[in-house]
Amino acid sequence: MSKHLERDLEQLKKDILTMGAMVEEAMNRAILAMMDRRPDLAETVITGDSELDEREVAIEEACLKVLALHQPVAYDLRFIVTVMKVNNDLERMGDLAVNIAERAAFLARREPLRAPLKIPHLMEAVQAMVREALDALVNADAVAARRVCDQDNAVDDMNREMYRQLQELMRSDPETIERGIQTLSVSRSLERIADQATNIAEDVIFLVQGEIVRHRLGKMEGR
Amino acid sequence: MSKHLERDLEQLKKDILTMGAMVEEAMNRAILAMMDRRPDLAETVITGDSELDEREVAIEEACLKVLALHQPVAYDLRFIVTVMKVNNDLERMGDLAVNIAERAAFLARREPLRAPLKIPHLMEAVQAMVREALDALVNADAVAARRVCDQDNAVDDMNREMYRQLQELMRSDPETIERGIQTLSVSRSLERIADQATNIAEDVIFLVQGEIVRHRLGKMEGR
Repeated sequence: MSKHLERDLEQLKKDILTMGAMVEEAMNRAILAMMDRRPDLAETVITGDSELDEREVAIEEACLKVLALHQPVAYDLRFIVTVMKVNNDLERMGDLAVNIAERAAFLARREPLRAPLKIPHLMEAVQAMVREALDALVNADAVAARRVCDQDNAVDDMNREMYRQLQELMRSDPETIERGIQTLSVSRSLERIADQATNIAEDVIFLVQGEIVRHRLGKMEGR
Repeated sequence: MSKHLERDLEQLKKDILTMGAMVEEAMNRAILAMMDRRPDLAETVITGDSELDEREVAIEEACLKVLALHQPVAYDLRFIVTVMKVNNDLERMGDLAVNIAERAAFLARREPLRAPLKIPHLMEAVQAMVREALDALVNADAVAARRVCDQDNAVDDMNREMYRQLQELMRSDPETIERGIQTLSVSRSLERIADQATNIAEDVIFLVQGEIVRHRLGKMEGR
């Protein structure tokens, strides 16, 4: 590999890991804004999103440049394609963090829902998946990536349970409908963040093993 | 350009256009299942999704092969990257069609909501965006692609209006809460399909002009 290509790939790696850290931070702040009812914190997530958008475009342009300049093959080609895909997934995760932050700002200004909702469990599970997916990416660790994919079904179940709980609450007290719908939206955004973490984990498996496992892991393991 | 590369690019073009036509068909069937209350039609969308998943993986593998074999540059490189991105967006659109079909099957087995909902307007607007985005792709027409992007805000507004209408309905009659939540989910899926159509349109602009317009069109036009 040429020194020049090596240097460009190192830079791409740094950039995608920085992007990952920034998106994780945005998600964590959105979740904290929701839990601690802090509109000020929510606001920082919303205003911070344009920087993530700009970084996404810059990373994609850098990938295209490396592809055109060096015409890499094998692992290097897979690495660049993986960076492009992860980049896109991270940007969507950032948008979902904004959605959570918007709902958090809305809910913080209203009476809290008096119901034993399991949303903290869901939040912790999603935060763990994102952290582990990004660690798997940093370490190019396919085994850790598979563990991330295995957690997605549990998160789907938690989201469905939130639906049942919130629907029950809204039926018993129609005054809660508006807040209930906003809380449902948070639950669904969390579930979609978990989907994106799963996408990233699948991309890591592709990077390491050269095999596209998307839509296939479940079938292979008889889920 | 080598004859071999030319033939491979032609094949990729055929494959992505077929994928687009299949996803559009799935979405149209899901919408019809919702409008005409037909669980049988909804079922065909749900069972048909695994073929879309398989085609997505096959197209991505074909793109990687062409990249590795021919190491294309300039327009050819952009074309392959565009196919990879559109492919991913189409697969997600297919998943959203499944979500609509699932809600349609649920709703078809219950009393219809007695309210003058504007969901047919939203459906027509989204169907038009998808059709025009795919036409822009077929014709590599950046002007048509920009028109698609311009329609996204109107669809967002229609989705917000659906939220207001449905929330009102649920408050006035708590018996409608379960069906209301399912209908909200259809509205949101439609709005997300419009987002994917916008992504495809932005990819077409990138293909033709070599410029990434994502996150930038709005700012440039002062939206």
